[in-house]
Amino acid sequence: MEKIKGLIDAPFTPFLPSGEVNYEPIPRYAAMLKKNGLQGVFINGSSGEGYMLTDEERKKLAEAWVAAAPEGFKVIVHVGGCCVKSSRELASHAAAIGAWGIGAMAPPFPKINRIEELVKYIEEIAIGAPGLPFYYYHIPAFNGAYLPMVKLLEAVDGRVPNFAGIKYTFESMYEYNQCRLYKDGKYDMLHGQDETILPCLAMGGAQGGIGGTTNYNGRELTAIIDSWQKGDLEAARDHQNFSQEVINVICHYRGNIVGGKRIMKLIGLDLGKNRTPFQNMTDEEEASMLKELEAINFFERCNKF
Amino acid sequence: MEKIKGLIDAPFTPFLPSGEVNYEPIPRYAAMLKKNGLQGVFINGSSGEGYMLTDEERKKLAEAWVAAAPEGFKVIVHVGGCCVKSSRELASHAAAIGAWGIGAMAPPFPKINRIEELVKYIEEIAIGAPGLPFYYYHIPAFNGAYLPMVKLLEAVDGRVPNFAGIKYTFESMYEYNQCRLYKDGKYDMLHGQDETILPCLAMGGAQGGIGGTTNYNGRELTAIIDSWQKGDLEAARDHQNFSQEVINVICHYRGNIVGGKRIMKLIGLDLGKNRTPFQNMTDEEEASMLKELEAINFFERCNKF
Amino acid sequence: MEKIKGLIDAPFTPFLPSGEVNYEPIPRYAAMLKKNGLQGVFINGSSGEGYMLTDEERKKLAEAWVAAAPEGFKVIVHVGGCCVKSSRELASHAAAIGAWGIGAMAPPFPKINRIEELVKYIEEIAIGAPGLPFYYYHIPAFNGAYLPMVKLLEAVDGRVPNFAGIKYTFESMYEYNQCRLYKDGKYDMLHGQDETILPCLAMGGAQGGIGGTTNYNGRELTAIIDSWQKGDLEAARDHQNFSQEVINVICHYRGNIVGGKRIMKLIGLDLGKNRTPFQNMTDEEEASMLKELEAINFFERCNKF
Amino acid sequence: MEKIKGLIDAPFTPFLPSGEVNYEPIPRYAAMLKKNGLQGVFINGSSGEGYMLTDEERKKLAEAWVAAAPEGFKVIVHVGGCCVKSSRELASHAAAIGAWGIGAMAPPFPKINRIEELVKYIEEIAIGAPGLPFYYYHIPAFNGAYLPMVKLLEAVDGRVPNFAGIKYTFESMYEYNQCRLYKDGKYDMLHGQDETILPCLAMGGAQGGIGGTTNYNGRELTAIIDSWQKGDLEAARDHQNFSQEVINVICHYRGNIVGGKRIMKLIGLDLGKNRTPFQNMTDEEEASMLKELEAINFFERCNKF
Repeated sequence: MEKIKGLIDAPFTPFLPSGEVNYEPIPRYAAMLKKNGLQGVFINGSSGEGYMLTDEERKKLAEAWVAAAPEGFKVIVHVGGCCVKSSRELASHAAAIGAWGIGAMAPPFPKINRIEELVKYIEEIAIGAPGLPFYYYHIPAFNGAYLPMVKLLEAVDGRVPNFAGIKYTFESMYEYNQCRLYKDGKYDMLHGQDETILPCLAMGGAQGGIGGTTNYNGRELTAIIDSWQKGDLEAARDHQNFSQEVINVICHYRGNIVGGKRIMKLIGLDLGKNRTPFQNMTDEEEASMLKELEAINFFERCNKF
Repeated sequence: MEKIKGLIDAPFTPFLPSGEVNYEPIPRYAAMLKKNGLQGVFINGSSGEGYMLTDEERKKLAEAWVAAAPEGFKVIVHVGGCCVKSSRELASHAAAIGAWGIGAMAPPFPKINRIEELVKYIEEIAIGAPGLPFYYYHIPAFNGAYLPMVKLLEAVDGRVPNFAGIKYTFESMYEYNQCRLYKDGKYDMLHGQDETILPCLAMGGAQGGIGGTTNYNGRELTAIIDSWQKGDLEAARDHQNFSQEVINVICHYRGNIVGGKRIMKLIGLDLGKNRTPFQNMTDEEEASMLKELEAINFFERCNKF
Repeated sequence: MEKIKGLIDAPFTPFLPSGEVNYEPIPRYAAMLKKNGLQGVFINGSSGEGYMLTDEERKKLAEAWVAAAPEGFKVIVHVGGCCVKSSRELASHAAAIGAWGIGAMAPPFPKINRIEELVKYIEEIAIGAPGLPFYYYHIPAFNGAYLPMVKLLEAVDGRVPNFAGIKYTFESMYEYNQCRLYKDGKYDMLHGQDETILPCLAMGGAQGGIGGTTNYNGRELTAIIDSWQKGDLEAARDHQNFSQEVINVICHYRGNIVGGKRIMKLIGLDLGKNRTPFQNMTDEEEASMLKELEAINFFERCNKF
Repeated sequence: MEKIKGLIDAPFTPFLPSGEVNYEPIPRYAAMLKKNGLQGVFINGSSGEGYMLTDEERKKLAEAWVAAAPEGFKVIVHVGGCCVKSSRELASHAAAIGAWGIGAMAPPFPKINRIEELVKYIEEIAIGAPGLPFYYYHIPAFNGAYLPMVKLLEAVDGRVPNFAGIKYTFESMYEYNQCRLYKDGKYDMLHGQDETILPCLAMGGAQGGIGGTTNYNGRELTAIIDSWQKGDLEAARDHQNFSQEVINVICHYRGNIVGGKRIMKLIGLDLGKNRTPFQNMTDEEEASMLKELEAINFFERCNKF
C-alpha cells in the first residue's frame, strides 16, 4: 500500500454564528493548506469536532473537502463514532464520493479494554470502504483506549485487508518505533504529535504525519522534515523548538481545538466558534493570546494565504 | 415538579440477527415490566446501548415504547450523545411523541472537566423539550465526568427551568445525600445502583430509582422498598442481599449490558446480541451463567410474564 | 475472634513547633476520646501521618498510646509502610508493648496490582505479631490498590491465621456487604467512612468502625449507632446529616489530615502542624473555617474535654 | 554546576537468600559497570528497591557503593521516601560519606498534587546536603506526581540552591525539551528512559542519562550516544533498536525490577530476589526469558565482566 509522505492537516470545522456548519470557507482553506506545504487533510477528526457533528453534516463536509481538494491533495475522512453502524455508512459514503482514505479512533463509550473489541470495531467499519486505506487513529488520552499497538497490528494483519496503518497520537516513541519495525515496516505509522517530529525522524519514523497545528504553523512543521532530510540538524531543531513555542501558547487557551481554532481568525480565516461542550475563548483571551503569539514572532513564520 | 416514586427500568434494546433493531418485542416487554412492579422505562440509555444507535433508531425506539406504554407507565427518553445538536433534536422528538421525560449523561468525548461545560451541555439539550422534566444521568465511570453534583444543582438552579433531578449512578452515598438535602429536596434524586437501595432508603433517599437489573429482577428490587416501608428490615435485607447475588453473577459475564441482556433470553424474552464493540457472550458462557443463576434459585424469584 | 463494637478513633499525631513529635498531649487526648464514646484508637495511620514518621517515632508513639490507654480502650497500631521488613518489626514491637491489635494498608509504592502480592505483603507483616489480630486497611484512593476485597478474604482465609478483618475506607457498600456476608460474617468488617455510618447500619454492617472525624465529632458519630439501635431513625438521620455537614467543612480545607487536625486546636487541643508535604492551613484559613463551624453550631455538639 | 555526560546506572540491590541485603557483590558490580562504559550509579532508587529498604540498609548500601566506586565514578544516592525527616537525614549521610550527589522522587503517599508541595518536599531534603547537587527524579507512573516540570524549575530557581536538574523518566519529549531549553540549559536534564535515547539526542538532549537496563545492556546503550556523536545515524539506530528488543523481553517478566534483576544472574552476577511485594520470577519464567534473550543474541552484546 502507498505510504503517506509529508504532513497531512487535520482541519477545523467552520461554524456560522448560528451554530450551523459553514461550508463556504473550505475551498480557500484547502488552497491555503496546499500552498503551505500540506499533502492533504484528515477531516472530521478531533480537531474537526467530528464527534460533535451529525452524520449529515459529516457527509456534507466530506463532500465539500473532496470538491475543494487541489490535484494530488489527499482527503482522508475520519468516520469513527460510538455507533458502528453510522461509521460504516460514513465509510461507504467516503468511498462513494472519492475520498482518498478513511480513519477512525476507538469509541470513547463504551471504553474499549480488549484488542478483540477494537479489531471487531475496526473490521466492521473498514468493510464499509474496502477499496480505501483505513487508518486507526490512536489517541488514548481522548478515549481511554490504552491498548498495545503492536498487538493491534498483529490482530488486524491478515484479517482487515485495507488496514493501512496508525495515526499515532501518543507519547511513547518506544511503541511507535516497535510498530514501525513490525514486519519491516508493513504498516504506515503516521506521526501524530507536532511537538516531536524531529526526535521521531531520528528514529527512522515520521516519514508521514498528521498535524493539528499545521493549520496555522504548517510551514515550520514541514520545514522540520525538509531540514532533517537535507542534513541540517540545527535548522531542524530551530523549527521544532519554534513549533513547541507555538504549542506552549495554545496550551494556555485550552489547546488546539479551542485556542488553535481561534488562531485561524488571527491569520485571516475566521472559522467561528466551537460546539458545546467546548468552552469558547473570550475576546480578552483572544487579545492575550495575540500578544503571546506576537512575542514569539509567530505572524512572520505562520501559514500564509 | 412531580417526583418519581418506585423503580423505573432501563430496558435493553432488542436486535435482530441481522444486527438491526427489533421493535417487535417491545409491547410484551413493557407489559412484563409493568406486571413486575416497574413504574416506567428510561430508554436508550447505557443498558439500551443508546450511544450505539443511530438517531433514527433512537427515535423509532422512543415511538415504540411510548406506543406500548401501559396507562401511567412513564417513558423517559435518554437523548444524550456527543453531538449536542442531535441530542436537542431527540429531545424535541421525545416531547412531540408524548414521552413523560428526558435525560442525558455527560458526553464521553470531549471529557467534561468543568461544571460550566456540563451546564451548557444540559441547557442546550433541555431547551429542546422545555415542557418535559430533564434528568441528568450521573455515571462518571462511563464518561469520566467526575464532577461535584451539589455544584451542578447550584449551577442549574434558576437557569435550566425543566431540570428535574439526577439519576445518580455512583457510589458516593455522602454526595447523594447532600444532593437530596439541597434546598430541602428541591430536586428529584433517583437512585441508580440496584446493589444499594436499602442503605440509601435508610438515609432518606431512594424514594425513586432507575434500575438496570430490574429487567429480570424487578420483583426483588421493588420488594426492598416495599419491605422497608412496611418496617420489615429483615425482609428488606433479604431482598437486597439476593439482588446483590444476582449482580455477583452478571459481573462474571461482563456486566448488565452483556450478561444481563442474556438473562432476558433465559427468562423468556430473547433480545438478541449487543452491538459492536460489546463482546457478546458465547454459548458456553451462557450455559455457565445459567448454572450460577440456578444455584441461587434465581428463576423462582425473577420477573415473570 | 472478638469483633470490635462501636467506634475506634484514628488520632492525629501531635507535633512541636520544631517539627518533632510531641508525645506530651497523648494522655489528655486519650482521656478525651474515651469520654466522648470512642472505644479505642487506630494510631499511625493516615490521619496520624504514620507514613511521614520514622520507625523510631512510630514506636515511641505506640508506647505513649499504650501507656495512656484507659482500661478497656483498644490500641491498634498501623504498621504499614513501603518496607515490609520495617513493618514486620513494628508489628513485633506492637505485640511486645501490649497493643490490642495491628493493621496495615497496602504500600503506595510499588503499587499493588495483584491479590497474591497483597497477601504476601500482609502475611510477612502479620507474622511479626502472630498473637494480635491483623486488620487490612483498605483505602485505595490513597495507594491505588483497587483490588477486590472478597478475593482478599478468600486468599487470606486459611493462610494468615491472625487476619481479623478489614477497615473498609471505600465507597462501595455493595462490596462491603459481600465481605460482611463472607462465611456468615467470619471476618470483622470495620466501617471506615464517617459520612455513611447510617446506610451501612441498615445493611447490617457498621457494628464497628474506625473514624477520622471522631477526633472532634465523636459524640455525634456514636449517636448515629445508638439511635439506630434504639430504633430512632429520625435521630440517626439527624446525627448523620450533621456529621456530613462537618465533613463538608473540612473538605474546604484539604480534608481531615489538614483541616480536621486544625479543628483540634479550635476545640482546645493544639496538635501543631502537619509534616511536609502536607500544606498547612494559614491563619486566614483557620479563621474562615471557624466561621463555617460556628454557622452549623459545631461547638455545641463537638467532643468535650 | 557540572553537568553529567554519558550514562549513569541505577543498580539493583543484592539480597541474600535470607532476605537481608548482601553488600558483598558491590565492588565487582561497580567494576563491571565502569568497564562497560557507565559513568556512575544512582543507588537506592526504584531499580534498587530503595523504598523497600530500612534507613539503616540504605546508609550501609551508600557506604558500600562509595567505598567501591572507581576513580571518577559518580555515586548519586536516592534519598527519597515518605518521611521527609528520614530523607533529610539520608541526604546528610550521603554528604558525610562522600557521595557525589543526591536525588529524590516525589513521595507516593500522600500523592503530591501541587508544585508548592513538591518544592517544599525538595527543599527540606536538599538542605540536608547543601554541598551536593540535588536531582529531582520525575517518574509519575510510580508515584502519581503528574506535575508540570517547567513549573518546577521556575519554582526551585532561586530557592533551592543545590537543585541540579531532573532525572526525567516520562514519555513527554516535548516537556523534556522545554525543561532543557529553560534559561538556555540552566538545569541538567538527565534522560531516564533507555528505550528513547536516540530521539532525545536528536532534539539536543540526552547528553547525560540514568539507565536501568544499563545494568546488563550498558555497552549497547552507551553505543547509541557514541554513534550519534560520530555522526553514524545507522549505527545509532541499530543500537537503539536492539536496546528496545531487550526491553521487549523484560516487559514479559514484570519489567526491569523483577525481570531485569534476574538477567544479572544470567550474565554472571546473582543478586538474589526482590523484596515483597514484588512477585519474583519462577524458574520456569527464567528459562523462558533465557530463550527469548538468546533469540536476539543478547549474550553476545550484553555487559561483560
